[in-house]
Amino acid sequence: MADALITPEVLKGFRDYLPEQMLARERLMETARDVYRRYGFAPIDTPALEYSRILLGKGGDESDKQLFRFTDQGERDVAMRFDLTVPLARFVAQHVHEVGLPFKRYHLATVWRAEKPQKGRYREFMQCDFDTIGSESNAADIETLLVIHDLLSAIGFERFQIRVNNRRILNGVLAGLGLSGQTAAVLRALDKLAKVGVDAVVEEMTAKAGATESQARQVLEIARPGIGWDELKQALNGNDEGLKGFDSLKELFDVAIAAGVSPERLQLDVSIARGLDYYTGTIYETFLTDLPGIGSVCSGGRYDNLAGLFTKEKLPGVGASLGLDRLLAAMEELGLLKNGKTPAAVFIPYFESTRLADYHRVARALRAAGLGVEVFPEARALGKQLKYADKKRHAIALIAGSDEFAAGVWQVKDLRNGTSQKVAESELTATIQALLE
Amino acid sequence: MADALITPEVLKGFRDYLPEQMLARERLMETARDVYRRYGFAPIDTPALEYSRILLGKGGDESDKQLFRFTDQGERDVAMRFDLTVPLARFVAQHVHEVGLPFKRYHLATVWRAEKPQKGRYREFMQCDFDTIGSESNAADIETLLVIHDLLSAIGFERFQIRVNNRRILNGVLAGLGLSGQTAAVLRALDKLAKVGVDAVVEEMTAKAGATESQARQVLEIARPGIGWDELKQALNGNDEGLKGFDSLKELFDVAIAAGVSPERLQLDVSIARGLDYYTGTIYETFLTDLPGIGSVCSGGRYDNLAGLFTKEKLPGVGASLGLDRLLAAMEELGLLKNGKTPAAVFIPYFESTRLADYHRVARALRAAGLGVEVFPEARALGKQLKYADKKRHAIALIAGSDEFAAGVWQVKDLRNGTSQKVAESELTATIQALLE
Repeated sequence: MADALITPEVLKGFRDYLPEQMLARERLMETARDVYRRYGFAPIDTPALEYSRILLGKGGDESDKQLFRFTDQGERDVAMRFDLTVPLARFVAQHVHEVGLPFKRYHLATVWRAEKPQKGRYREFMQCDFDTIGSESNAADIETLLVIHDLLSAIGFERFQIRVNNRRILNGVLAGLGLSGQTAAVLRALDKLAKVGVDAVVEEMTAKAGATESQARQVLEIARPGIGWDELKQALNGNDEGLKGFDSLKELFDVAIAAGVSPERLQLDVSIARGLDYYTGTIYETFLTDLPGIGSVCSGGRYDNLAGLFTKEKLPGVGASLGLDRLLAAMEELGLLKNGKTPAAVFIPYFESTRLADYHRVARALRAAGLGVEVFPEARALGKQLKYADKKRHAIALIAGSDEFAAGVWQVKDLRNGTSQKVAESELTATIQALLE
Repeated sequence: MADALITPEVLKGFRDYLPEQMLARERLMETARDVYRRYGFAPIDTPALEYSRILLGKGGDESDKQLFRFTDQGERDVAMRFDLTVPLARFVAQHVHEVGLPFKRYHLATVWRAEKPQKGRYREFMQCDFDTIGSESNAADIETLLVIHDLLSAIGFERFQIRVNNRRILNGVLAGLGLSGQTAAVLRALDKLAKVGVDAVVEEMTAKAGATESQARQVLEIARPGIGWDELKQALNGNDEGLKGFDSLKELFDVAIAAGVSPERLQLDVSIARGLDYYTGTIYETFLTDLPGIGSVCSGGRYDNLAGLFTKEKLPGVGASLGLDRLLAAMEELGLLKNGKTPAAVFIPYFESTRLADYHRVARALRAAGLGVEVFPEARALGKQLKYADKKRHAIALIAGSDEFAAGVWQVKDLRNGTSQKVAESELTATIQALLE
């Protein structure tokens, strides 16, 4: 052992989660798990390390460069996963006969990317994905929308909007205009609309997608958010692929609204371009009405073939991913986070040194009723202990010294407003539950 | 992209978790988190990767060899954490002024060790630790015992025993016998008792710890599980350190029992030797009465100084770690695992193709009442869908075709026993909740 101290520090681009942050993150993860499960999605997990050949070339050159990759003790070329989609593809190819199809899974896990660290971006972060594999049915797309909706509601957001598109609609529009095969170029141009304005987008479409100015303006007209169904259908001009996309999207809106989703939370948006080389049908993006600038907090879509590199079996699917870190940042900004440093609402000072068993006996009874109760571990001065409880933001202190023990009561102190009352032991649970409601 | 398929496989010593296994693991993790929180332990997280200098030399040569260690893109010497104790030491040294003392944290996270793979041992596994840092008070040791107890109960075990020791007792006994400084050698010999028998242990103590045969037999007498308090106190022969250990341990038993722990679940065992170079006071091991052979499922103890390599501040602490994988194996063997492949009890077949909105509307209403409900994504033949539900072990199918829709009822089919009843939509929640109870 060295005599000089080792500086305690984390790697560049990495971070510790302190209790306050971790409590918020765990709460969010629990909500996501809860909603996924209620829809029948089941959890899986895969190793953090995979053979490099499983991960390489799946996310493009940039992604390969960002892999934490090394040679292990057995001379194997290994790497840490950079997302949960490639491991899912490997997993489904390997286990499809065990898990059966359709396969609905969720996966909350850490991924690593050696990106250039910058504000709000880390080399280690958590992904929170759910997917339905092995079905081409639009019912799976509809369910994906419902999950996104119920997830945002369950987290506590009232004002949000899910923008939905179907890639085949724009394909159809472009085919109708004689611009087949230009979807990617058109979408790339459309994607810049908010940043560069209409004229610059028109210019890019004429330069890069072979459109005339009039065609480009027609595309822009159709691609505006909030276009009506009738207008959109007309623009498709009977194109078969476009109409198929249109019908799927229309059914998705109709069923979701009939199943109870508020129409204001949905928006048709033909311009959504996410995952250009990957998504082939429905596409989802979710924006917080009060914080649109942070971008989509839950995104996904339908893809034709998940695991083509690992199996000859064609596995279509649809799913989405909750942007956990982005959402936490948003919740902090909107004041939706409870700012405690403790998971326990109740604090019991260890005041009378011979009464530790009583403190623990009462604490255990309250815990059995579902309350969180911390007993301070040292018989210190009461003032010091209450200062600790304030700092940790416990809500209630439960105090008993010799007077209280003699009288058979406890002092219930609400630390949030300083009020205090004496309560019989048998009434403690009910009193505290009422105060915490 | 390559034309040849990549074989989908995981690295040697690693494994995928399929839904059935992962559901059990998540349930166990949730129980642990819940109990820790109710005691006021707060969660933290630390990076999977640390500077190698943080991790090296902390677990001995063997541990260093098992590190997944490499040079990252920035030429940093980095390694994946092999436990949660060293990261905790680094964390506390770094953040002590932010988190304050005493600091009660739990940490559920994955660790990696390039061990020789063997049955039941993996190179990637989850640890589930809780500790109280910064207090020398025996009240923290007592609370640790209560947490272990309530954790095992909450998981669903009725029959278990927590064996408790205080390292200072044996120190005292040995000092009384003139064998001061031989604690480690004596404990190493005692540790083999079950395997090699009394005579071999006596032989080792005489050979390695400088004891006479009579001394060795005296030690064995005291170190037998279930020795009485009076007998033990007498054996200490007034030794000061031994009596301090004795008093702490006695208080721990007295308070725990007064706080509601059943005495049969506790056992005094002076022979427990865990963590020879690390633990200095109380030591805990937990055995399942019906499966003693799998070893301790929750172990820990008190240590003098957590983070001496990182800070001059002396940080004593006490804590324990739940053996998640061992416990899962035990629960499987004891039939304590629910063997479902789905988190959703209720299954709704997508039967009438025009009625998807009704299926989803009802599913969402049931979910809002807390039920898990899966809607099948494809309008296939009913028989096929029910076969899928059977395979996944959904408990209840909720069936509605044209007849049921016409009559305003749903068929509630209990898939566990095949019984069926027709129920009005308004009664569905209550009916299903009653069936699931």
